[in-house]
Amino acid sequence: MGKIEHLGIAVKDLEAANAVYEKLLGTAAYKQEAVESESVTTSFFKAGDNKIELLAATDPGSAIAKFIEKRGEGIHHVAFAVENIVAEMKRLEQEGFTILNKEPKRGADNKLVAFVHPKGTNGVLVELCQEIK
Amino acid sequence: MGKIEHLGIAVKDLEAANAVYEKLLGTAAYKQEAVESESVTTSFFKAGDNKIELLAATDPGSAIAKFIEKRGEGIHHVAFAVENIVAEMKRLEQEGFTILNKEPKRGADNKLVAFVHPKGTNGVLVELCQEIK
Repeated sequence: MGKIEHLGIAVKDLEAANAVYEKLLGTAAYKQEAVESESVTTSFFKAGDNKIELLAATDPGSAIAKFIEKRGEGIHHVAFAVENIVAEMKRLEQEGFTILNKEPKRGADNKLVAFVHPKGTNGVLVELCQEIK
Repeated sequence: MGKIEHLGIAVKDLEAANAVYEKLLGTAAYKQEAVESESVTTSFFKAGDNKIELLAATDPGSAIAKFIEKRGEGIHHVAFAVENIVAEMKRLEQEGFTILNKEPKRGADNKLVAFVHPKGTNGVLVELCQEIK
């Protein structure tokens, strides 16, 4: 597993949160992108060689809306960069982790992604993240 | 604000969590360290140029024990590397953020640290982290 590719933060109001994180990180979002399959709009900030992804739901049934309803705004997932997502999914399954998707799916920011169930990772939703070349 | 210096994860049982994160990240913890002022024991893993810090309470009154009691295990804070922590604390106060300590304090892993109140950062506990040279 490589570096932290990004940290995903669930927010209610993307524009308001963009203003907060622009002040906090001292840099404006470099990208805003809708991911229709997940019913979210995202924005991305650079923090050194890492990224912060803000996620706001576009539908009350989306995972992000449910997360906020249950726990409030906050850190939703951590994504690690991997070179070969299929090999990493297999390795983690063999180690006893539960992978939430059978195959990698297309995520925001030109990535193939897969998620690891938080029940096996001390409550942390882990994303594997491979750049599409 | 620089890169993500580390991501702090609150766990109940440090030895059990060490075994999980060794499998997940494919590398063993490179350091274990008690921080008596915070009533925690920590262990550190490398993930590329970032670190994962596992934190377990050594006292039921510690902030980590209370966090787990309220929310369960999971991501507790994100720490960003800063070059000049005092200047960054001042900048953030001027931007309207609430800094939880008046002066930087000594954290784990040879760092000066300060925390930003999560009420101003969409529920995210942010740590500023300057290496002690």
